[in-house]
Amino acid sequence: MQFDLNKSVEVLERTPAVIESMLSGLSEDWIHQNEGGDSWSPYDIVGHYIHGEKTDWIPRMDIILSGDDKKVFEPFDRFAQFSNSKGKSLSDLLGEFRNLRQKNITYLRSKNLTEEQLNWKALHPELGEASLSQLLSSWVAHDLNHIAQISRVMAFQYKAAVGPWQAFMGILNN
Amino acid sequence: MQFDLNKSVEVLERTPAVIESMLSGLSEDWIHQNEGGDSWSPYDIVGHYIHGEKTDWIPRMDIILSGDDKKVFEPFDRFAQFSNSKGKSLSDLLGEFRNLRQKNITYLRSKNLTEEQLNWKALHPELGEASLSQLLSSWVAHDLNHIAQISRVMAFQYKAAVGPWQAFMGILNN
Repeated sequence: MQFDLNKSVEVLERTPAVIESMLSGLSEDWIHQNEGGDSWSPYDIVGHYIHGEKTDWIPRMDIILSGDDKKVFEPFDRFAQFSNSKGKSLSDLLGEFRNLRQKNITYLRSKNLTEEQLNWKALHPELGEASLSQLLSSWVAHDLNHIAQISRVMAFQYKAAVGPWQAFMGILNN
Repeated sequence: MQFDLNKSVEVLERTPAVIESMLSGLSEDWIHQNEGGDSWSPYDIVGHYIHGEKTDWIPRMDIILSGDDKKVFEPFDRFAQFSNSKGKSLSDLLGEFRNLRQKNITYLRSKNLTEEQLNWKALHPELGEASLSQLLSSWVAHDLNHIAQISRVMAFQYKAAVGPWQAFMGILNN
């Protein structure tokens, strides 16, 4: 598929409902356990989505659309959620994510982006030059990446419990 | 996590709403494209969930709980959805899955399974002996496995569109 703004928004606008339907009201075990070590729990992942809404996708779009001579993205903090989520319930985080996402989609639509603008570029601190359409495609793929991760982290909790079926489950053998 | 019936049902009862919120109303491209070759589209995966509700989890539970001398599972048909879904809309399939799942959870709860019964076993045609708690754990992990797969198949459609970000997305490098 080529990048398509409307089809991208279709996915972006669904993600808060997807993760709410996955996580809202679940037992603490499903929400707070991870895959061991420094890996992330579903709760951590929701915090990561929130930080992306605040500092990644839309702020980077604004950099690309700005008239600045030197367009360079700020580095993204992949660990911000560990301090930012402190003291918040999962329900707080899900609500915060839903509101931020809604606001960001409204803002994105208000830009009425042209084909030309979608090809404008900025410099990513690690990846080099990247275009607006690549940024927006990545926003979509990133949403899906972490839905898959939430599923994988939850499935991991039953890795031993499934017994012989582990052999048939790709998600338990990553 | 040890197997826990109530915590398992928490996940099982959410899955129809999760895949509905992911897929309902999406453009055909997201629904019908796959990862190439014989791989499955999100539409195919919903059909696979339906076939599992009809022929896998609950029928196998009934075999384990039966008084039969020789408890052996029927082999599961991993390709049944390609004929069974023919002519049906995604919305038909999502509704069918939701109804079957609801009925199956009601039936599961009506059994009031004891700890002893959860340890009863039957013979899987390929995997050998498996217990009821392993079967029910696998039902949960299987749900999560295919939520992750739907996410991965959708993300795959933007594999080229994300440009340099591909390097950062685990889901695009499986």
